[in-house]
Amino acid sequence: MKKYFLIIAVFASAISLKAQKVDLNQKKVDAILAKMTLEEKVGQMTQITLGVVGTQTDGEINPEALKNAIIKHKVGSILNVTNHALTVDEWHNLLTKIADEAKNTRLKIPVLYGLDGIHGQTYTLESTLFPQNIGMAATRNLDLAKAVTKVAAKELRASGVRWNFATVLDCGRQPLWSRFPETYGEDVFIGKTMGAAVIKAYEEDGLNKTTAVASCMKHFLGYSASRNGKDRTPIYLPEIEMREYYMPQFREAVKAGASSVMINSSIINGMPVHASKYLLTDILRKELGFNGVAVSDWEDIKRVYAWHHVATTPREAVAMCVNAGVDMSMVPSDFTFYDLLIEAVQKKEVSMARIDEAVKRILMLKMKLGLFDNPYPEENAKANFGKTEYQTLALDAAHEAMTLLKNQENILPLSKSKKYLVVGPGAQSISALNGCWSYTWQGKEEQWYPKDSKTILQTITAKVGEKNVLTTTVKGFESPENFDADALTKVAKNADAIILCLGENAYAESPGNIADLALDENQQVLAKAAIATGKPIILVLTEGRPRFITNIEPKINGILMAYWSGKKTAEAIADVLFGDYNPNGKLPFSYPRSSGEIVLYDRKPAEDIREVFNDDVHTGYNPLFAFGTGLSYTTFTYSNLKLSTKNLTGDNSLQVSVVLSNTGKMDGKQTVELYTRDMHASISPDMKRLRAFQKINLKVEESKTVTFTINKNDLAFVNASLKTVTETGAFKVMIGDLSDEFQYK
Amino acid sequence: MKKYFLIIAVFASAISLKAQKVDLNQKKVDAILAKMTLEEKVGQMTQITLGVVGTQTDGEINPEALKNAIIKHKVGSILNVTNHALTVDEWHNLLTKIADEAKNTRLKIPVLYGLDGIHGQTYTLESTLFPQNIGMAATRNLDLAKAVTKVAAKELRASGVRWNFATVLDCGRQPLWSRFPETYGEDVFIGKTMGAAVIKAYEEDGLNKTTAVASCMKHFLGYSASRNGKDRTPIYLPEIEMREYYMPQFREAVKAGASSVMINSSIINGMPVHASKYLLTDILRKELGFNGVAVSDWEDIKRVYAWHHVATTPREAVAMCVNAGVDMSMVPSDFTFYDLLIEAVQKKEVSMARIDEAVKRILMLKMKLGLFDNPYPEENAKANFGKTEYQTLALDAAHEAMTLLKNQENILPLSKSKKYLVVGPGAQSISALNGCWSYTWQGKEEQWYPKDSKTILQTITAKVGEKNVLTTTVKGFESPENFDADALTKVAKNADAIILCLGENAYAESPGNIADLALDENQQVLAKAAIATGKPIILVLTEGRPRFITNIEPKINGILMAYWSGKKTAEAIADVLFGDYNPNGKLPFSYPRSSGEIVLYDRKPAEDIREVFNDDVHTGYNPLFAFGTGLSYTTFTYSNLKLSTKNLTGDNSLQVSVVLSNTGKMDGKQTVELYTRDMHASISPDMKRLRAFQKINLKVEESKTVTFTINKNDLAFVNASLKTVTETGAFKVMIGDLSDEFQYK
Repeated sequence: MKKYFLIIAVFASAISLKAQKVDLNQKKVDAILAKMTLEEKVGQMTQITLGVVGTQTDGEINPEALKNAIIKHKVGSILNVTNHALTVDEWHNLLTKIADEAKNTRLKIPVLYGLDGIHGQTYTLESTLFPQNIGMAATRNLDLAKAVTKVAAKELRASGVRWNFATVLDCGRQPLWSRFPETYGEDVFIGKTMGAAVIKAYEEDGLNKTTAVASCMKHFLGYSASRNGKDRTPIYLPEIEMREYYMPQFREAVKAGASSVMINSSIINGMPVHASKYLLTDILRKELGFNGVAVSDWEDIKRVYAWHHVATTPREAVAMCVNAGVDMSMVPSDFTFYDLLIEAVQKKEVSMARIDEAVKRILMLKMKLGLFDNPYPEENAKANFGKTEYQTLALDAAHEAMTLLKNQENILPLSKSKKYLVVGPGAQSISALNGCWSYTWQGKEEQWYPKDSKTILQTITAKVGEKNVLTTTVKGFESPENFDADALTKVAKNADAIILCLGENAYAESPGNIADLALDENQQVLAKAAIATGKPIILVLTEGRPRFITNIEPKINGILMAYWSGKKTAEAIADVLFGDYNPNGKLPFSYPRSSGEIVLYDRKPAEDIREVFNDDVHTGYNPLFAFGTGLSYTTFTYSNLKLSTKNLTGDNSLQVSVVLSNTGKMDGKQTVELYTRDMHASISPDMKRLRAFQKINLKVEESKTVTFTINKNDLAFVNASLKTVTETGAFKVMIGDLSDEFQYK
Repeated sequence: MKKYFLIIAVFASAISLKAQKVDLNQKKVDAILAKMTLEEKVGQMTQITLGVVGTQTDGEINPEALKNAIIKHKVGSILNVTNHALTVDEWHNLLTKIADEAKNTRLKIPVLYGLDGIHGQTYTLESTLFPQNIGMAATRNLDLAKAVTKVAAKELRASGVRWNFATVLDCGRQPLWSRFPETYGEDVFIGKTMGAAVIKAYEEDGLNKTTAVASCMKHFLGYSASRNGKDRTPIYLPEIEMREYYMPQFREAVKAGASSVMINSSIINGMPVHASKYLLTDILRKELGFNGVAVSDWEDIKRVYAWHHVATTPREAVAMCVNAGVDMSMVPSDFTFYDLLIEAVQKKEVSMARIDEAVKRILMLKMKLGLFDNPYPEENAKANFGKTEYQTLALDAAHEAMTLLKNQENILPLSKSKKYLVVGPGAQSISALNGCWSYTWQGKEEQWYPKDSKTILQTITAKVGEKNVLTTTVKGFESPENFDADALTKVAKNADAIILCLGENAYAESPGNIADLALDENQQVLAKAAIATGKPIILVLTEGRPRFITNIEPKINGILMAYWSGKKTAEAIADVLFGDYNPNGKLPFSYPRSSGEIVLYDRKPAEDIREVFNDDVHTGYNPLFAFGTGLSYTTFTYSNLKLSTKNLTGDNSLQVSVVLSNTGKMDGKQTVELYTRDMHASISPDMKRLRAFQKINLKVEESKTVTFTINKNDLAFVNASLKTVTETGAFKVMIGDLSDEFQYK
């Protein structure tokens, strides 16, 4: 008894200590706030980009410009790089100068630096890049997601940066959207569980520790639902849909302890989100209980006036957004926000109480991050940069992301002793394996990538020897003249098979806008030439979103979706192609056939009806590859689906178990996914919804019983009154090819 | 003074007579209702399709089946044809048998027959077909729209049919949707003004007259906004968008006196519209003040259970829909609705008050239609069928629909003395000129069309003589093997120019679902072959929705959009191509470049921003052809834009005048369109909105002053509180290439 008592006492004491610490921080913040002038407060709410205080040379500071920002305009936060990633030492140098200047201010409030470390620490040279979120979603591995996030946190902190603008929690339901690769795909459950795991991983060590950074929930709310698919274009979301598919991810991330949030740049139903008190205060603060810092996205407060025309002056836009709940403006290229907000407060358009609330949140974040104790880059954090083991982790993550979509007559894995033509713009590209936010914003400039980055051509050559690899002049995506179909035809004669590497080169945000999801004409020509050779073809797709391959797919023997999986993408691809790794990724989206046939896996029954009058039109859910597709080199069998009860009641739990067996000839991993379907509801219920998953490792002939516990909350949906409810009635539960029904009463 | 007094007195007396008549009808209806059993009432609410009482032979009745329907199940309404259109006499014969049988019922309540006369009387052989709504919208001519509607009404009534399921008021903002041709295009103002004019034209003569029919507003509400573009698939509409773009058309149609409404088959925000009391009672009845008959669409009450799963039994679905506000169920293939509704009333799931309300509306419609006085086809109405003048009107309408989209170096009009290759699947097709709802549902069976229907090849031949017309074996859309690019290349050698006829063959509803808006591969091959000849090319598009021609357009010299313009489409095309008619149609939608670039003309400013990083991507409003595009063979100049005030106040009016001059060398018509832009508003305001238009006829060198009167209602929008408001501030007014600003205070 005594032992238990002791543990409880220690635990209670730990809680109490934490509470005291928070309380202490609060007191410190209040004390500082009490001394601050309006100008100092508004300066804290102002965030500028590095370019404002920098020079043409990346990583250099213009001292006069820095004084203007920090001393004159009392700026509290800086972000971004000028052009490209810097070394760890350059970051330390730069951030030291900024910290030095902040010491010259009256109250010596430290500056908070923020960066977009999207799939690893984007902006430090030699950092370790991992799969984009879309690839991490394919791994269905929360531990892996946390592990790669902790590396990102360490490499950011090692670079002196304590605030990361990640992770993207926007649900990827519009595949045309240029930020689709930054999402966890179309499913709400994957988005909310993996999103929350990542937020936790960034912060759970404690923000004052050198292994953590403040995370940022992006982009509250509904940003990904652009109707026309272009970045930052209008969104039309009925609130029931917003709450069902776009809000749960933020709800979970707030619970996971996110320190900050970035706002959706666009308008929802005509209202700029930055100016929406309903979304930013009523929902974000009151309903979700978020109390961290809300930062605007790039120039977005200006755009409330200049783009969206809901304010008649720039100052009105500033007042609207601050009153709505924005705490910090990513202005970022001038000091207009600073000037206008001071005016607005003086004219009583914004209350001092609202200013104080925003500044308190900002100071509290700086306090938690330890910036008041030490505003300088932490020398001891440097040791956490670039550890060898990160490379192994990068390979693990890339391996688990690899998603085998097609394997006709088990053409894969390939023999290492045959001859292969490795061809296509993805074959000799590094940027097309990494995508956006890779050493530059767009990720396209290969000169900044680590020198040991490998292309697919290189890793395949390493695998099968130079004599077994043929190629053509095709190199990269940027030179259309290199898409030489004739060369392909000629060289293919000597090959046993063609490894065709297609997809997308890197892009981010608006530059990733495209006219259509069709594969570029050049790539189609190349694919048709490959098909015309009559040789077996393995298609390797490195892309951030699904580009249509409907016309060529029937003639392709094997298809590997590699996404943009970071540093070790090429190694992982070669390992899978040649059987050194058994693929286990699962597609986190529905790969559509055409722009007129975009239906998601959790479609409504009315979308599932096959009212087919024309053979070539698919009315039901009939994507080229369904959500969850992912083949293995072994075979997994499901049996013995058991429900602990056929009548789930009230708040009780239901155990669902199933036996998974590896009945093939290779060890492998499999994600067991549990779906449910509400058979009837007051709102037309989705055909299926993912409610739980577990990733299982099974040796040949091994079996495991996998058990899930679900309760009424896992069966809930948003009803017409916008309440999340579970209605009584019949439910179907589905795992693999098995299913059963139960009643909720 | 005496004279005026007299007029007023007569007028007052007329009003009083009308009121008395309504009152009398009401009394008669009440008297009948008082005698009716539950079964008789529910029978009135039941509508079945002709096939249920017919035989395999079209137009024949199975007497036993008819007895089963009318005597046993007391059915109050029948619709449709079995397969194809009938002659006027066949209709009279058929409807007489039905009327005879209804005389055998206890209360002798007549049967109401309904048909889909969509662009003329679809289902009577030799009827006059006019342009589809999309083509009528291009005419911008309300008088013309009313004139063609009156012919449709007469030909329906001449066939004995008094209820027409037209017009479609759904706003065509999703060009992929297979019913896009049935819409008035993307603009709200055209939709509501032309829609209301058409509703009025059907009914204004008085429903008991042989020149009128009961109209039907289709399909309440939001049906056209299918997210994935397939027919009858889910719609997600925030209410603010629903009210701004989809509801005004119905509001105006109710005011215009519509007698009935048909319900949207699909779900909005998860709720089947048929089961939505909010939409069908709170909005339709209480807010819009509609008191006519609400009929379901085909099988849709069943689908509330079977497709949408918001009811747990078929009976629950029946009860939900009737309680929501559906008065009549287009069951239509069995008597389940009859049985289930009787059960539901007996079990108190539906009140007798609700049943009585529905039945009263149905009986009142029958009363107004004169069916109680004479339930038989009206012999004297026959004279109104197929008058010669209808052909002239059909040509007028087709002429005014013709929309010239491109005329490089004035290649058009063409000389009648050169040689032309007339080629493409549209060249020798009748169905591709008429589209959906043409003698059959799908409109594809050419054997039912009038024998004097002409193809484009025929009308061009008539124009320039056989010796000047070349063609190939290409005939119609249905034989891909006929798309002979080699034949085209060969024959083109002897031609001075190519008239390339592409587009879409007829389709309606779900069979019109397509994978993509891309032009069929076959047609693209043909277009490329034509381009490769180097000859000048005139592209004639006969299509119901915009199919992408982005890749071929730069090489095409002239483009004529002909839509599906009914009986005289080919004549109108030839007249325009050879200068016998000066085109004046204006595109009623934005012709998009690609599926990722669908932006409508009334876009938000955020869609207008050209954040261009890639030259080949268009972020702003940059369709291939803008809304309102329509070239002429003469030139029109706008001058002298004048506003009666720069400060519009309260409920006052603003006169906007402009001088339009024909400065070219040919007489012609021009639609003068007035657009406004709200410069700032509480909801991000649309870039421009059409507020008024007038069609003007000008001889060479003639000028006219065109005056518009607008008031605050014309400037209104739906705000965040879902109220239609006009906010004070700056507005821009735009006519042609002129613009000015004013303030609303």
